Amino acid sequence: MKQRLFTPGPTPIPEEVLSALSRPIIHHRQADFKEIFRRTCTELKYLFQTKEDVVTLTASGTGAMEAAVVNLLSSGDSAIYVDGGKFGERWGHILKQYSVTPIPIKVEWGSVLEAETVRETVLKHPKAKAVFLTHSESSTGTAIDLKRISETVNNSSKALIVVDGISSIGALEVQMDAWGIDVLITGSQKGLMIPPGLSFIAFSQRAREAARTSRLPKFYFDLERAWETVKEMQTPWTPAISLIVGLDVALQMIRQEGLQDIWIRHDRLAHAVREGSAALGLETFSKSPSNSVTALLMPQGIDGEALRSQLRKKHGIIVAGGQDHLKGKVIRIAHLGHVDNLDIIAVVAALGMAVEECVGGSDPAASLSARSGTGFDPGAGVKAALRELSKPVRHRFELEYSYQ
Amino acid sequence: MKQRLFTPGPTPIPEEVLSALSRPIIHHRQADFKEIFRRTCTELKYLFQTKEDVVTLTASGTGAMEAAVVNLLSSGDSAIYVDGGKFGERWGHILKQYSVTPIPIKVEWGSVLEAETVRETVLKHPKAKAVFLTHSESSTGTAIDLKRISETVNNSSKALIVVDGISSIGALEVQMDAWGIDVLITGSQKGLMIPPGLSFIAFSQRAREAARTSRLPKFYFDLERAWETVKEMQTPWTPAISLIVGLDVALQMIRQEGLQDIWIRHDRLAHAVREGSAALGLETFSKSPSNSVTALLMPQGIDGEALRSQLRKKHGIIVAGGQDHLKGKVIRIAHLGHVDNLDIIAVVAALGMAVEECVGGSDPAASLSARSGTGFDPGAGVKAALRELSKPVRHRFELEYSYQ
Repeated sequence: MKQRLFTPGPTPIPEEVLSALSRPIIHHRQADFKEIFRRTCTELKYLFQTKEDVVTLTASGTGAMEAAVVNLLSSGDSAIYVDGGKFGERWGHILKQYSVTPIPIKVEWGSVLEAETVRETVLKHPKAKAVFLTHSESSTGTAIDLKRISETVNNSSKALIVVDGISSIGALEVQMDAWGIDVLITGSQKGLMIPPGLSFIAFSQRAREAARTSRLPKFYFDLERAWETVKEMQTPWTPAISLIVGLDVALQMIRQEGLQDIWIRHDRLAHAVREGSAALGLETFSKSPSNSVTALLMPQGIDGEALRSQLRKKHGIIVAGGQDHLKGKVIRIAHLGHVDNLDIIAVVAALGMAVEECVGGSDPAASLSARSGTGFDPGAGVKAALRELSKPVRHRFELEYSYQ
Repeated sequence: MKQRLFTPGPTPIPEEVLSALSRPIIHHRQADFKEIFRRTCTELKYLFQTKEDVVTLTASGTGAMEAAVVNLLSSGDSAIYVDGGKFGERWGHILKQYSVTPIPIKVEWGSVLEAETVRETVLKHPKAKAVFLTHSESSTGTAIDLKRISETVNNSSKALIVVDGISSIGALEVQMDAWGIDVLITGSQKGLMIPPGLSFIAFSQRAREAARTSRLPKFYFDLERAWETVKEMQTPWTPAISLIVGLDVALQMIRQEGLQDIWIRHDRLAHAVREGSAALGLETFSKSPSNSVTALLMPQGIDGEALRSQLRKKHGIIVAGGQDHLKGKVIRIAHLGHVDNLDIIAVVAALGMAVEECVGGSDPAASLSARSGTGFDPGAGVKAALRELSKPVRHRFELEYSYQ
């Protein structure tokens, strides 16, 4: 059966990238590789909207998270992190593992992170060296107002701002330098549209200074080595060459579409999924929904895992399930990366059919019907999604750097 | 120009693997991935000749080296390592970074590591928790007698034996369980014939016990997580999916050829390169040459970098240069992974032509001519290589496990 992937990583990979992955391997110390790597280094700065070097690590996103911690801090430091989902939690685990005292800001899964809460915590803990944030929390489909929260932290303290942009970069607006972000990371298998295996990390000048005095042990993730070797368009260790060749193609596609238009597209697609699902009686779980992934709350009587299985087996649609206490209670549909209007129509159409197939003539169907007005209409989702997709652009963006 | 890669990583990638890399991406929590991963887990045990789990890391080989250190030891421990080249040195750097006292066994680059030296050092440092070895030192083209040295360590102490098999596994005989090796690692871009980006690590039961009391900080490379998740055919973090799909194909090719026949092939190819080069007046640098890569000492008057450049520009042959103090003094030709008899003929033929082109009618030519007998014959190398390639098998191997 034809498969369509709507998971928040890996995301679908463009055919242009897939075919680049199968090119004959080249050697990473030769001129042909350096030329490709040089191009990716510039385009990553554009993507991050920064003047600083963006380091490419051969590791998944979690590796880049660890790199942020071990290059910034020393044992005995304290640091604030926002614990509002699976990935926010992870910052806490890493900090603890490295004997940094973690100060959590607990946010109920799917709730809004208020800038005021962050301000209070930062003021209460003036010794905290850094604030670790998750821009788009994939486990709950929640985005934070990163611009505003960065501004708040920068106005109230000297703490460094570290942002997990793994499922936001290339989808949601992020402007590292303009927003005063000190450390920004992402992964390859999200907005970047290539397979997993690479992650990326950039440090502001202020963060580079902190790195010079950081005393946590590190070797593979030691960024000083990467900053040194990148001058020669090299990596300290043998990189995942074929993924970098694919990255080069993906970054050219991003350049061609334009970052602002990519942000506009993700905004449009996210709205279409949410409105389409709502028309089918499925509410968005998050109170501050992310434009990269939508978690849909299952109405009573529909098990998320059964719905996912139906989507997969009957319609070839792969979506993610809920994690931890949300297992079975939500399904998560990503609209992230190489996804367009008609992909959204496909997933919303399949969702309508799968819901109908799952509930049959049972009680939940009745309750859904009630919510949809006159009997359950599996096409109601597509109708609503189409309406959203043809709306005028909600918001236009300005870039600080064009690198052209 | 047609390019031929003879570097000790990346090595040439079979077309079957290249085309697998460009398959549509699948999700790492789905059944189709688990099926592939299950197969690679079994085949990796065959490759390592072990009953233990072989963990797949999304990282280059250096990441697996770090994983060995941080999962075995605690700060304040001491450990012995053999410093006989660039990669042996690296063990020392990692140990030091993690506050483990490194006890070096210094071996001149390219010299033989005597089992007796290892025995003496182990007896002199009874508190050393582990001995870190490099089976095939790519920087010098040197192999150690791993079976004998493991036996010596196991007979004289309780120290754990940790082996960097990055450029040996899939080329030189290694039998983890039968030889009493406690930790064995390798990388993807060597004997495994896939692109860089994955590395592999296995722990003996004795090493698993040590891991339980190890107190070095770790997160991404925490193997306890990997041993837990592998039971469900999962990885703790999103793995480099496409590389694992390629790995599956490569491991099937290894199975088809058979590990013993792969070892025999590498032995034959290595001898052909060495004898072919000798016939051209180029000596093998190492006194204990490795079957995966040959470092050739440049005769006076031939600069290694100039010869490499000639090989690349005129003949499309990519070989490696010397590192550190060997830069310009040696070139390194790998015969590792997806390489056969006729590839060896190609590289030796090109070497003959390139040497002649490099020296012209100058003095070194005269000295080379003298060594070759009657005037310099660029075909002498191929003649000698052909002779080696048709010799009967030197040594046959027995496997402990067949996993069939």
